[in-house]
Amino acid sequence: MSAADFSPRHFGWGLADGVATITLNRPERKNPLTFESYAELRDLFRALVYWPEVKAVVLTGAGGNFSSGGDVFEIIGPLTKMAMPELLAFTRMTGDLVKAMRGCPQPIVAALDGVCVGAGAIMAMASDLRLATERTKTAFLFTRVGLAGCDMGACAILPRIIGQGRASELLFTGRTMSAEEGERWGFHNRLVAADALIDEAQALAASLAAGPGFAHGITKTQLNMEWAVSLDVAIEMEAQAQAICMKTQDFVRAFEAFAAKRSPVFEGN
Amino acid sequence: MSAADFSPRHFGWGLADGVATITLNRPERKNPLTFESYAELRDLFRALVYWPEVKAVVLTGAGGNFSSGGDVFEIIGPLTKMAMPELLAFTRMTGDLVKAMRGCPQPIVAALDGVCVGAGAIMAMASDLRLATERTKTAFLFTRVGLAGCDMGACAILPRIIGQGRASELLFTGRTMSAEEGERWGFHNRLVAADALIDEAQALAASLAAGPGFAHGITKTQLNMEWAVSLDVAIEMEAQAQAICMKTQDFVRAFEAFAAKRSPVFEGN
Amino acid sequence: MSAADFSPRHFGWGLADGVATITLNRPERKNPLTFESYAELRDLFRALVYWPEVKAVVLTGAGGNFSSGGDVFEIIGPLTKMAMPELLAFTRMTGDLVKAMRGCPQPIVAALDGVCVGAGAIMAMASDLRLATERTKTAFLFTRVGLAGCDMGACAILPRIIGQGRASELLFTGRTMSAEEGERWGFHNRLVAADALIDEAQALAASLAAGPGFAHGITKTQLNMEWAVSLDVAIEMEAQAQAICMKTQDFVRAFEAFAAKRSPVFEGN
Repeated sequence: MSAADFSPRHFGWGLADGVATITLNRPERKNPLTFESYAELRDLFRALVYWPEVKAVVLTGAGGNFSSGGDVFEIIGPLTKMAMPELLAFTRMTGDLVKAMRGCPQPIVAALDGVCVGAGAIMAMASDLRLATERTKTAFLFTRVGLAGCDMGACAILPRIIGQGRASELLFTGRTMSAEEGERWGFHNRLVAADALIDEAQALAASLAAGPGFAHGITKTQLNMEWAVSLDVAIEMEAQAQAICMKTQDFVRAFEAFAAKRSPVFEGN
Repeated sequence: MSAADFSPRHFGWGLADGVATITLNRPERKNPLTFESYAELRDLFRALVYWPEVKAVVLTGAGGNFSSGGDVFEIIGPLTKMAMPELLAFTRMTGDLVKAMRGCPQPIVAALDGVCVGAGAIMAMASDLRLATERTKTAFLFTRVGLAGCDMGACAILPRIIGQGRASELLFTGRTMSAEEGERWGFHNRLVAADALIDEAQALAASLAAGPGFAHGITKTQLNMEWAVSLDVAIEMEAQAQAICMKTQDFVRAFEAFAAKRSPVFEGN
Repeated sequence: MSAADFSPRHFGWGLADGVATITLNRPERKNPLTFESYAELRDLFRALVYWPEVKAVVLTGAGGNFSSGGDVFEIIGPLTKMAMPELLAFTRMTGDLVKAMRGCPQPIVAALDGVCVGAGAIMAMASDLRLATERTKTAFLFTRVGLAGCDMGACAILPRIIGQGRASELLFTGRTMSAEEGERWGFHNRLVAADALIDEAQALAASLAAGPGFAHGITKTQLNMEWAVSLDVAIEMEAQAQAICMKTQDFVRAFEAFAAKRSPVFEGN
């Protein structure tokens, strides 16, 4: 299967000019996740590693909301009845979705309108860039259903985006982060008009898709890996990683374009 | 000894509806810390691990100030005369206070008015959430007494709250962070009116105390532990930690309350 | 050679009252870096470890700009023709500059006007404190030349200063961070008038130079080292590091000055 042939069962999919758009699309329920959609999303992000024709990804929701997260009756109800091995299998599967989102080389632009809560907030958090609207409401609701804030990497990733104090508040209280707070705190990269959201997200993704794709993948890998290493190790890692990128033709293309006073056309190799 | 019987010698103590309030109370000296009060605070936060009747903690100061930190004549003077083993015993004891604050399962809400400096600023930093007033002045003064900024974990914790650049400025210069800066930088979660400070802090603590206490303790543990591990390790840690929480009755209570369209009543187990 | 004798070939150098000023000074080209200036800067920051007469450093650029980074024709062109061993030697040399800037005990105040891009942005990032003007334009341009954002430690250091979301945007897109954004996001510590920039930076450096120099060096060491260790390890590291500082005469001087109600005069030992 290739990206062009992909026909998911649980969400929308489109591919144009190297930009794939994933649309969570059960708008009548505000795009909740189910066991099946979690697994299919995980499999998709894993497949993206092998689909070089996809250069960047937009992740969005249909009908004015991003996602209401794990469905209460389809997910939470069954979980309350499971034995530990099944529970761990579930939490590992949802964690694998975040690992897969971080593990694919394509930058992911989340386009977030309306409700962005629970596992929806997690998918937003696990994206690389986030655009939102003034009505986007983001909440890490886990505490509201009796659970801990440590879901799918939130205690590790959220503090690195908005700081430990603000992350602690959101994770302990489950309160909503307003769009304005999200922008001010560095969660949202930019707020845009709701009716321009998908266009702005796709334009941003297109600009990334026009960039040096191989190098973008290395940037993402390094952003993932350098959290938990010493400064000296990080610098040596980057010396090696950037030396690899200097052997790409995109680097040569950029220099030749600069010398010829034109814009480079990158090919991702 | 239990929380209800606790009668500290060096600070105030109150317990109501699961919320313990610790009040630094030498207001005529702006609530400085002494060798004895450091040790008693450390022992209290260690005891909180075994006091499940305490669900959340408010940490505040009497008389319009939080704390002036280590007393110059009662602490700094003696330190200048000590041999290395005694010095290390002291710095380890103060570090143990921070470890104990981070190690107790209860979320700690610091209510910060007026002077919040030196070890006072550290105790604020080591809390989970911080409320302040427009007159709160926070300073990591160690450089002013000829010491390094690395006191009681400040070089590790402060950058994670406000970022490395702002933390560097505060730690190298010892300058005061205004209340407005503290809110803007993510140190203070919220500024409130001075005469409402203790009520607001206790209300926030009460809302946390009404939450799933066991899960809150896990959230705190994970926020502590996931700083220095890789992304993949953090996600696996959370898969395990959240699976544990899914075996609590609070999780079942939340689902049953949702299904019955009422609010859940959590019991912390 | 000592600091007073130092006469660099590729940048300006001045020393007054313990404050060294490094000026990138090819203003007609906006102060680009070359193979030779990278190496000489690296050697200088390494030498600073042994020059206790230098208490603080100001790093700036001549002619209204900080630095345009690696010169396209003098650096990028040759790199496109190199074999891997030479490439890795180059990326390790530039990484060594960052290691040397972080490794010297003196706090570095970057004074940033105008263009601050590529390796210039990296040198700003690797400084301890940053002052800028309203016209400072900072960009991590590597993606524009077909490379990854992971250059000289950027994927490790930048997220710790401005957060992972904003760092991701700058590193993936290569876009300019405005001066106002830089201040709001915690990259710049303060914006000052362009005609006051060097004076403000030198005044800030002078205030640091008047502080406890040995302890400042320990603060810097700990800020470097505590990124990737557990909370408990960080606290023990600080217990040891601060106990060392309590054995300095500067600590005694501060106490004696306080007791005598005068300001301490630190000597850095």
